[in-house]
Amino acid sequence: MKLNSQNLSQRLDTLYDAIIAGGGMGGLSAAIYLARYGLKCLVIEKGKGRSLWMQELRNYVGLDPTTPGREILRHATDMALHWGADYLRGFVDGVTDCGDHFEVQVKIGKVNPTFATFKGTYLIAATGIIDILPQLEDMQNVYEFAGYTLHVCMICDGFDMWDQKAILIAGKESQIEAAFVLSWFTPYITVLTHGLFPVSDEMKARLKACGYPLIETPIARFLGENHQLQGVEFVDGTRIECTTGLINMGAKYHNHYLKNIPELTWDGENLVTDEFCQTTHPRIFAVGDLKKGLNQVAIAVADGCLAATKIWRNIRRSCPPRVWAEHLVSPTPEPATAQ
Amino acid sequence: MKLNSQNLSQRLDTLYDAIIAGGGMGGLSAAIYLARYGLKCLVIEKGKGRSLWMQELRNYVGLDPTTPGREILRHATDMALHWGADYLRGFVDGVTDCGDHFEVQVKIGKVNPTFATFKGTYLIAATGIIDILPQLEDMQNVYEFAGYTLHVCMICDGFDMWDQKAILIAGKESQIEAAFVLSWFTPYITVLTHGLFPVSDEMKARLKACGYPLIETPIARFLGENHQLQGVEFVDGTRIECTTGLINMGAKYHNHYLKNIPELTWDGENLVTDEFCQTTHPRIFAVGDLKKGLNQVAIAVADGCLAATKIWRNIRRSCPPRVWAEHLVSPTPEPATAQ
Repeated sequence: MKLNSQNLSQRLDTLYDAIIAGGGMGGLSAAIYLARYGLKCLVIEKGKGRSLWMQELRNYVGLDPTTPGREILRHATDMALHWGADYLRGFVDGVTDCGDHFEVQVKIGKVNPTFATFKGTYLIAATGIIDILPQLEDMQNVYEFAGYTLHVCMICDGFDMWDQKAILIAGKESQIEAAFVLSWFTPYITVLTHGLFPVSDEMKARLKACGYPLIETPIARFLGENHQLQGVEFVDGTRIECTTGLINMGAKYHNHYLKNIPELTWDGENLVTDEFCQTTHPRIFAVGDLKKGLNQVAIAVADGCLAATKIWRNIRRSCPPRVWAEHLVSPTPEPATAQ
Repeated sequence: MKLNSQNLSQRLDTLYDAIIAGGGMGGLSAAIYLARYGLKCLVIEKGKGRSLWMQELRNYVGLDPTTPGREILRHATDMALHWGADYLRGFVDGVTDCGDHFEVQVKIGKVNPTFATFKGTYLIAATGIIDILPQLEDMQNVYEFAGYTLHVCMICDGFDMWDQKAILIAGKESQIEAAFVLSWFTPYITVLTHGLFPVSDEMKARLKACGYPLIETPIARFLGENHQLQGVEFVDGTRIECTTGLINMGAKYHNHYLKNIPELTWDGENLVTDEFCQTTHPRIFAVGDLKKGLNQVAIAVADGCLAATKIWRNIRRSCPPRVWAEHLVSPTPEPATAQ
């Protein structure tokens, strides 16, 4: 059922088998599996996730390479609802571990928000990450190209940059390392720091040895039209030509609601999990970009399957098998006068 | 490029970066990723794999739950070819480890087959398994229902058996254990041995305690129409009613070509792999049902991504970064007279 501020009171007494924070590829895959295991689950999705920005998904078995992320999310949300999952647009504000279940605090709506608390035995953290973009005065100019010809994922889109004139935008020196990987796809790389950090002499020498120009002047705006990058203009009025680019400025991790749970193990901002996406807290699973591993749709979808299957196993193994005989016993007829 | 016995001679001198044995979900996912990493790969597909028999894929993010396996395979094969993979219909007969590459012997065609040997640095074993079906005199009668209402995967299809009258067909006593899991979805279970094995008193007592009838008489034929199971007739002429069923008779593993490679580690018939689907042989990866883990399309697709990405990393890290300057040097003009 699709929940909203009007009807959610019907679910405040429900103990969900699992609450899924995040309705991206991993969270929705978990919801589809959980629902088809006959388990009660609630997906809480804040909107504007990483896969919503994805204009084309080019490496996922079964879908045309021009399929945009938003279409897959819509389809998978409908599937999860169809199989019986609950779904709520809201923001997971906090999680309290009550020992045998979690209380999940959700903020619904941005203007005059309402707040609600849901209960679930398991928690699946599927809130992912969002790529940090260069901050320009006119952010619309960034959105015009980001996700089209100005990429954020080399694994996904390196192929489409083959031997093109590319820019690499880094947010700190260590992120310049990506230039020496991007060179697999194209050697025509200009590295931009957007004026955010100084570059060491050692790195400058490495870039020079590969013939990759370094520009430390802040970017004024991206040039081009119809999402096709054609160049960059800098704040000093100079310009360079390029037809593609990679933004490698790190990511913001949507994991604030997990920071007060002491049992979790972190590797930087990523959650450490086992082969079933179980964290070091036995009732918290992490799927997709939030856990250590490749940030790929195919991986997130498999993660959802793994987490849901392990949760089903745990719950199932704690129940005795259902018995045929019991079900054949006719229910005791109610006395007619009781009506 | 699609290879066949006419044009394959063009590829006999090629050293592929990876040869993928098996063009199911995992193999094709690996091919799509490898091709998009700009690596040379060849998919060898014998046909008639497990996912070809799958009539509906109900739990995969992005696809309608009525999508048949054959449609996904066709689509993913086209995608792999589109991005630059080679594809050959053939049967992997044997693999020879030559130290720095493999020679893969392929049998092409069934009547008057031809044989060819391809070379690849890495090998991805993606040949999967095929479910063992009850052997009846009229196998068409089995195919009429298998994959429709007579299922082979509880994770995939348990939901669609909910509280229905079900049969469980086992091939040996340990496979009867599935009854106590299937009871999560329905308690109305009749266990059939098809006369293949004796059942211990202990198992009989456990089934009786749950109220699950046991029938040890061989099956004569399945009853029903339009793929909808309605019952079973046994060789003694008796009949039972049922509307669904699960075949749990094990699987045949397509792994014969790997049995002579001493570095591999096996868990039964499954290959043991690490988190990137790498086996204990550093140049052999295993994806999908052949490796230990869940037999799910979502998992196989992720496996393909992981194996391909690790292979790309290995190859990339052994190469220096490409240098811009080199590419800016104009090629030495050929003397005009040389033509």
